[in-house]
Amino acid sequence: MNILLTSIGIRSYLVDYFKSSGKVSNVFSADNSSLAPGIYNSDKYFLVPKIDDVAYVTNILDICVNNSVSALIPLHDLDSLVLSREKLRFQDLGIKIFTPENEVVEICFDKYKCYEFLRSHNIPVPKTYIDLQKVKQDINEGLLSFPLILKSRTGSASKGLQKLENVDDLNYFWSEKDTIIQELIDGVEYGVDALQLNSKDNYKVYIKKKLWMRAGETDKAVTSKNKIVYSTICQLLEQLVILGPLDVDIVIKDNLGYIIDINPRFGGGYSLSHEVGANFPKEIIKSLLNESRLFDSNLKYDEGVIMMKHPQFTFFKGGLS
Amino acid sequence: MNILLTSIGIRSYLVDYFKSSGKVSNVFSADNSSLAPGIYNSDKYFLVPKIDDVAYVTNILDICVNNSVSALIPLHDLDSLVLSREKLRFQDLGIKIFTPENEVVEICFDKYKCYEFLRSHNIPVPKTYIDLQKVKQDINEGLLSFPLILKSRTGSASKGLQKLENVDDLNYFWSEKDTIIQELIDGVEYGVDALQLNSKDNYKVYIKKKLWMRAGETDKAVTSKNKIVYSTICQLLEQLVILGPLDVDIVIKDNLGYIIDINPRFGGGYSLSHEVGANFPKEIIKSLLNESRLFDSNLKYDEGVIMMKHPQFTFFKGGLS
Repeated sequence: MNILLTSIGIRSYLVDYFKSSGKVSNVFSADNSSLAPGIYNSDKYFLVPKIDDVAYVTNILDICVNNSVSALIPLHDLDSLVLSREKLRFQDLGIKIFTPENEVVEICFDKYKCYEFLRSHNIPVPKTYIDLQKVKQDINEGLLSFPLILKSRTGSASKGLQKLENVDDLNYFWSEKDTIIQELIDGVEYGVDALQLNSKDNYKVYIKKKLWMRAGETDKAVTSKNKIVYSTICQLLEQLVILGPLDVDIVIKDNLGYIIDINPRFGGGYSLSHEVGANFPKEIIKSLLNESRLFDSNLKYDEGVIMMKHPQFTFFKGGLS
Repeated sequence: MNILLTSIGIRSYLVDYFKSSGKVSNVFSADNSSLAPGIYNSDKYFLVPKIDDVAYVTNILDICVNNSVSALIPLHDLDSLVLSREKLRFQDLGIKIFTPENEVVEICFDKYKCYEFLRSHNIPVPKTYIDLQKVKQDINEGLLSFPLILKSRTGSASKGLQKLENVDDLNYFWSEKDTIIQELIDGVEYGVDALQLNSKDNYKVYIKKKLWMRAGETDKAVTSKNKIVYSTICQLLEQLVILGPLDVDIVIKDNLGYIIDINPRFGGGYSLSHEVGANFPKEIIKSLLNESRLFDSNLKYDEGVIMMKHPQFTFFKGGLS
């Protein structure tokens, strides 16, 4: 069985996880850049157009057909968004895409849609605004207070993230385009790696407490079994019902678990969950072989295991200089 | 012979480079945090106070004496600054610190001092200001124009870096405290790894063109032999005359090499130079054994070798959760 990881980027380690998950013949990768180190770790790689190029999907489809690919794992939010729209085209050729249905990916991708979705399901979420006047009105009425967070409505990681301390900051940084303002939930931040296989009750969940962030990524974290985080993520998964991995950020304040981000893909800190036994790649392969099982819903892994990220390097002699 | 790498942080790979440099019995490391992954890669590690703690230097000195350490390699700018002040105390005990003399480290650490130093030696450097009125005056007189760069006067990486497009930005971001304003040199950025062993004419130089930066660090780069960069770095080293490694950022515009940063330590992208044969750790060990040689001043390494950084993970079962 052949697997294709798209938008592989710097995640060389994910190639290793899939290679060692058993019963996989080849782990292929795709990226638009020959400077993506992950491609050099895979059995074969494909340089493809950018995700927003009209030729992207057809290109990926051709690669799948010509290389007997059984399953696609997109590793970038925009990639999930684009490929989730085309699930049927791939399905007709017997290729499974491990990404949620398009309507769910849309919710993950657009932080304002996400806010509306979570609120409508009574899942705690920071108050979120796309209208500057409404922000000012709520401040004046005492319903909202500084500091606030301004960020990109559709951006990944901490793209465009800005802490706003007062109304001067608010006026300075506000822009109509692709911007949201959010209440700052000043609590303890957790990350969740979840895998769900299209069944409401069948999912696997691993929780980590974040210890250190850099440029929007979790550089240090420790495994946890926090009950509030667990009940929040269960509530979410039972609403979403997805196929594939999910990366969710949850902040706990006053015994409430606020969801601050949902990414419909492997998260950058998945390695910690893998270390304590998650092995989502193996579960994905099993599901393709119809060997998937009912997951044990209890949190059966070691608490207190710490992950620390550090740089490694891939080299190649190219033509640039 | 035992070596101690202080402020090891995430540079696990540097421990490997020293371990494989021959004739080293033990590579020790020190950090103030048990979450620094580099410590777990060394033969023995020491948790020490923070660099700005009054007990820091005495603590490091005790470690050196009790563990027969012959040489210290500080890996953080502030660490270099503090330890360079105490070179004699260590020297009296037969311990060499591979960091420039304190007056040179002061120049590297303070970007305004650095500007004055470079200008006084006719080495190209972006116009730099610590006085807001002087910035505005030069703009009004047509001697300076937007965009400008605002950054921390003493910070590492891209700490506090802000691009200023107009006078509103300038007024908004300006702060008297630890801030400089710099002319933006819009050119091609190079990084240089240099090693000098206290001799004006004896140094080793490796040049890379930066291809991709993230959070102030070079994530992708390619080896280069750019002549303007080479002559600029030679001019600098012949003025400085230091002991140890140096990491220098140079931007080329209109055939001039502008120095934009000097770090008195191994740079975050040193691995590329190492890959093409720099082996500064080996040269450092040789110099300790009085086996050091006259370096070949020509740039004898492969051009066009590309480095791509990607994450790796260290785990341990601690007590946190």
